[in-house]
Amino acid sequence: MKDVYQRAVELHHQHRGKLAVVSKIPVKNKNDLSLAYTPGVAEVCRLIAKDPSAAQHLSLKANTVAVVSDGSAILGLGNLGALAAIPVMEGKSVLFKEFAGVDAFPICLNIQDVEEIIRTVKNIAPVFGGINLEDISAPRCFEIEERLKAELDIPVMHDDQHGTATVVLAGLINALKLRGSSREEVKIIINGSGAAGVAITKFLFFAGFKDIIVSDRRGIIYQGRDNLNPIKEELAQFTNRQKISGSLATAVQGRDIFIGVSAPGILTTEMIKNMNDQPIIFALANPVPEIMPDLAQKAGAFIVATGRSDFPNQLNNVLAFPGIFRGALDHHVRQISDAMLLKAAENLAAVVSNPRPDKILPDPFDKKVVMAVAQAIR
Amino acid sequence: MKDVYQRAVELHHQHRGKLAVVSKIPVKNKNDLSLAYTPGVAEVCRLIAKDPSAAQHLSLKANTVAVVSDGSAILGLGNLGALAAIPVMEGKSVLFKEFAGVDAFPICLNIQDVEEIIRTVKNIAPVFGGINLEDISAPRCFEIEERLKAELDIPVMHDDQHGTATVVLAGLINALKLRGSSREEVKIIINGSGAAGVAITKFLFFAGFKDIIVSDRRGIIYQGRDNLNPIKEELAQFTNRQKISGSLATAVQGRDIFIGVSAPGILTTEMIKNMNDQPIIFALANPVPEIMPDLAQKAGAFIVATGRSDFPNQLNNVLAFPGIFRGALDHHVRQISDAMLLKAAENLAAVVSNPRPDKILPDPFDKKVVMAVAQAIR
Repeated sequence: MKDVYQRAVELHHQHRGKLAVVSKIPVKNKNDLSLAYTPGVAEVCRLIAKDPSAAQHLSLKANTVAVVSDGSAILGLGNLGALAAIPVMEGKSVLFKEFAGVDAFPICLNIQDVEEIIRTVKNIAPVFGGINLEDISAPRCFEIEERLKAELDIPVMHDDQHGTATVVLAGLINALKLRGSSREEVKIIINGSGAAGVAITKFLFFAGFKDIIVSDRRGIIYQGRDNLNPIKEELAQFTNRQKISGSLATAVQGRDIFIGVSAPGILTTEMIKNMNDQPIIFALANPVPEIMPDLAQKAGAFIVATGRSDFPNQLNNVLAFPGIFRGALDHHVRQISDAMLLKAAENLAAVVSNPRPDKILPDPFDKKVVMAVAQAIR
Repeated sequence: MKDVYQRAVELHHQHRGKLAVVSKIPVKNKNDLSLAYTPGVAEVCRLIAKDPSAAQHLSLKANTVAVVSDGSAILGLGNLGALAAIPVMEGKSVLFKEFAGVDAFPICLNIQDVEEIIRTVKNIAPVFGGINLEDISAPRCFEIEERLKAELDIPVMHDDQHGTATVVLAGLINALKLRGSSREEVKIIINGSGAAGVAITKFLFFAGFKDIIVSDRRGIIYQGRDNLNPIKEELAQFTNRQKISGSLATAVQGRDIFIGVSAPGILTTEMIKNMNDQPIIFALANPVPEIMPDLAQKAGAFIVATGRSDFPNQLNNVLAFPGIFRGALDHHVRQISDAMLLKAAENLAAVVSNPRPDKILPDPFDKKVVMAVAQAIR
């Protein structure tokens, strides 16, 4: 049997990619042509020239999102550049359509300078109703997103940050319910301070969690540590109040929750045994998690989640981003706020009516997911 | 009965624009997801990272064209800007799909600076297999096209120039056959020196016509005329060898062919009467031509063509651009050359097996058109 990689390549080759652009209206004769194109289209142009907001209901802007990447952080593969980013951005666009009916189009940028990316996205923004930033490396992704949010009048979201944070929170809501713990009391260690780690940390604070330690490749992040970049400096302000220093092994001691957005296999059974009772383990490195679920369970984990579809409790962004943009487009939201995403996480958690340790999140193909999330974005 | 403008607006409102982006492959379960997205897609990315040319057969780049405008010259409506340009670019994209199976996506730029347009198009080029420039005002359009052709490795064509020129030549080929004239002997007056006028002039010289006079709003263009911009200066080098000066009325005297890409109603019956016998009149101003066909005929015109679908002999770009890009994509053409377009015009003319004065070009819905044109672009 061919493996998934071979089959994926064959599928992409057979169809020459995954996306097609089609007409929603027929063009079979001169009458059709006179309405879709000249002369009829002239009146649609005139209406938009008079009232630019009319583009939102007279053009594809009503339902279209750009999936923008510079190819600098493609999956776990690194900086592969614009061309090699296309299959991922096409795939993401496919998911937008299949899960939420959003028309999404991949924009893969040939440049990696922050200012140039911001300019280019602003220059091409008119046809889009929203911008989904994707696979842009940290810390560049933070400034790019912040600036575009401030300078564009359509919603902008870096999914690796906020989509991930939303799904993590949804998973935690049900995990804490099962464990009988409150957000205020649990102690969290987040390993990884890239786009996802930073966003999860900030979002969990926003959601009411109090005690979070973040660690990176060099160990625990604390105020005053050498060579912290501005983002980690900021994290050090509000995480790790006790100013603990040391390695991950130190960081996990006495913690209730481990959230890994880091590297394969770095969490050992030994470390889990040093956590509090009934630890919750979100090992989200992809495709190989920080610890394999069976090992984590043997070491005493109460709940284990990964990014993989072949284990229970898959934490997959596809649970969030389609509904987030569906809601933003439907409700003409100009900025997707943390408050909206908090509500989205709560709605997403509530889709699972009876959470179990091996079922804290709904299946991505559950039809209720998109509407639950979309209703929160308004 | 509602007029075409009202009906067009209603259609655009009902469908919220005209274009949708769809998946060519099913995503109905986890297996589908693992091939279209992670983990399978990673291998497709790796292949392209290793060999960038693989993007041409493993991604949407294989069949996708950007329809790029800055909204500076929308139809005959003027500089309406990016948002008001969307309906036209969407319409053009619809035609690409319906007539040639090309996936086209509108890119409407929020900026009108030449350098900034060039940068932006280069930055977003990776996902596209070709660039169709559209409704960009002269003389900016010339530099933008020239530079992008030189700096990108995918075909770039400004349709208002070369699509128009190709269709005009195709029409002339059959018109001359009917009139029994050769390219070398006929005398042409081209009124209008915008994007279309300039491109038609140059292309007709390339095709073997010898005697062309060009006029603009200020009258006949001749070497040494005041305030000629560099493009008109260039035209003055190889047109109007006799250095005639004066108004359009002077320019048409003793000419065999009038080609208008200018303004409504500026050609009078009087002027046609001063042309040579059996004059050929291409009155292409849209929607109101330089002279109405019935008037032209009464004044003695042998053949009259316009841009309109409600008269015989419609010279419509849709006869050319879908096939041109179909051919360029299928044959991996990096630059669309004049020689290819000359062959395309000849093939297009040949689709009409028995031309008549009221039938010099095929119907746009004639299925033979696209392949005839596409075969020339290789």
